[in-house]
Amino acid sequence: MTHPALTRISASFATQTMMHTLGARITALANGGCEITAPLLPEMGQQHGAGHAGVTFALGDTAAGYAALTLMEPGREVMTAEMKINLLAPAAGAQLIARGRVVKAGRRLVVVTAEVEAEAADGTRRLIAVLQGTMVPVDPA
Amino acid sequence: MTHPALTRISASFATQTMMHTLGARITALANGGCEITAPLLPEMGQQHGAGHAGVTFALGDTAAGYAALTLMEPGREVMTAEMKINLLAPAAGAQLIARGRVVKAGRRLVVVTAEVEAEAADGTRRLIAVLQGTMVPVDPA
Amino acid sequence: MTHPALTRISASFATQTMMHTLGARITALANGGCEITAPLLPEMGQQHGAGHAGVTFALGDTAAGYAALTLMEPGREVMTAEMKINLLAPAAGAQLIARGRVVKAGRRLVVVTAEVEAEAADGTRRLIAVLQGTMVPVDPA
Amino acid sequence: MTHPALTRISASFATQTMMHTLGARITALANGGCEITAPLLPEMGQQHGAGHAGVTFALGDTAAGYAALTLMEPGREVMTAEMKINLLAPAAGAQLIARGRVVKAGRRLVVVTAEVEAEAADGTRRLIAVLQGTMVPVDPA
Repeated sequence: MTHPALTRISASFATQTMMHTLGARITALANGGCEITAPLLPEMGQQHGAGHAGVTFALGDTAAGYAALTLMEPGREVMTAEMKINLLAPAAGAQLIARGRVVKAGRRLVVVTAEVEAEAADGTRRLIAVLQGTMVPVDPA
Repeated sequence: MTHPALTRISASFATQTMMHTLGARITALANGGCEITAPLLPEMGQQHGAGHAGVTFALGDTAAGYAALTLMEPGREVMTAEMKINLLAPAAGAQLIARGRVVKAGRRLVVVTAEVEAEAADGTRRLIAVLQGTMVPVDPA
Repeated sequence: MTHPALTRISASFATQTMMHTLGARITALANGGCEITAPLLPEMGQQHGAGHAGVTFALGDTAAGYAALTLMEPGREVMTAEMKINLLAPAAGAQLIARGRVVKAGRRLVVVTAEVEAEAADGTRRLIAVLQGTMVPVDPA
Repeated sequence: MTHPALTRISASFATQTMMHTLGARITALANGGCEITAPLLPEMGQQHGAGHAGVTFALGDTAAGYAALTLMEPGREVMTAEMKINLLAPAAGAQLIARGRVVKAGRRLVVVTAEVEAEAADGTRRLIAVLQGTMVPVDPA
C-alpha cells in the first residue's frame, strides 16, 4: 500500500480508539476505496456468540468514511451523517473484512457504500452485510 | 422494573459480550419498549475523542431488539434484518441512553425505532441519533 | 391553517406537478411539521390494486420536505438527500395522510421523519409507513 | 429478452397501474436482475421541473422487486418491506433507467439494491440514485 493519502489516513485511524479496541487495521487503500480488517473478538459478541451487529456496522462505516477521505483535500475530515446496514448472515469466523467505496463525492455530501465479509479460519469468505450512507466533509475543529 | 419479560431479557442481554464490554445495562423495560444505558468509554472513541458511531449504533440497535423481544413469546428471539441511523450530534458526555420502541409487531417482521441521547456529567441530555429498522423473529438454534 | 410560511410553501407545492397529478394537498402546517393528504387513485396502484409504494414514498418525502421548509428562511429551498421507508401495511382505502416532522434542523442537514396513514371510507385510519431521512437546504437556482 | 421468468413478470408488471401511468417498461431481465425504463413525464415533476423523487423511488423499487421475483418459484410474489434511497443528482433528461439487483436471496428476506440513471436526449447517462432494501416473498392472496 503506497497510496498518497495513506499517511494522513493512518494517522487519523490511529486516533480512533474503538478501531484499536477492535484490533482493526487498514488493509487496502485506493482513490475512493478503503478496506479494514479486524479479528472477531470474543468480547464483542451478540447473544449467540457471533460478532455483534455494532462491530459489523463500525467496520463498514469506518471503511466507508476513509474511502471518502481519500478524495478530500489534506486537512479536511468527514463525519457520518447517516448509514444503513442490511445484515445478511451472522458475523461468524476468524475475521471481518470491510470494504468501503465512494459512489459520489459531492462538495457537500459524499455518498458511500460498504460491504462486510466474514472470513473463516480456512480462508473461506461470506458476505454478511451491505451498507449505504452519507458522509459530510467537515473542517477540522 | 418488574416487567414480566425482564428475567428472560436480562438473561439474553447477559450473553451479549459486547454489551458487557460497553458497560451497558438495561435501565427500563415496557411492552414494546426498552432503554439501555452505557458510559462513554475512552477505548470506544472516534478520531475526535467522542464515542464511535458503532457504539451509538450498537446501543440503539440492541434497545430496539429488546423492545421487539418484549412482544415475543418466551423462547423466541429476534435478529436485526436492517437498521438505519441518522447521527445528529457527537456522542460526547458521560453516558449514552438508548431507547428502542416497536412501531409495528408483525408475525414475520417487527418494525422498530430508537433514539439515543448523550448525557453530560451535569445531567443535561442531548439527542444524538435516531434509528429505524426491522427485526425478524427467529426460533432459537 | 394560517401559518406564516403557508403562502410560500403553497406556492412551492403548486409547482410540483407530481403532487397535482396525485391530487395531493397540504392539510396542515406547523413549525417543523407538515401534513399532506391525497386520494388513492386507481392509476397509481401496484400489482394487487393497493397504492404503489412510490406514492406512499412521494407523499411522506414531500411532507417531510415541507416540514423542513417551514424552518428555513424565505427564499431558501430543501432537497431530499436520502430517505428510508419501512412499509407496514398495504396502501388501501380512500386516501393517504402523510405527516412530516423535523427531528433536527442543522445548518447543513435537516433530519426528518414522516408517517403515512391510510384512511378508509368510514374514516378508520391505519399506519402504513414510517420514513426517516435527510433534507439539505439549498439556495434557489 | 427471452428469460424464462419474462412471461410471468410481464404479467405482474402489467397489473401495476402506476408503472403504466409512468410509461414504464421492462427493458432487461436476468436471474436476480431487472431493468425498467421510463420517460421523464412533465406531470411527474418536483418544484424545479425535474422528476419527483417519488418517481425515481418507484422505478428503483420496482426494478429491485422484479429482480427478486426472477429468483422466486412461479406463483410466489414479493413485497417491499423497506427501501432506502440516496439521491445523487436531479432526475433531469429524457428518460430514467432503473436497474435492480439481488444481493442475497434468503428464504424469508431478499436483500436488493438498485441504481437509477437519467439519460439525456443525446444518450448521455448520469447516475442519479442508489437504493438498498428488503423484499419479502409472499404467497399470493
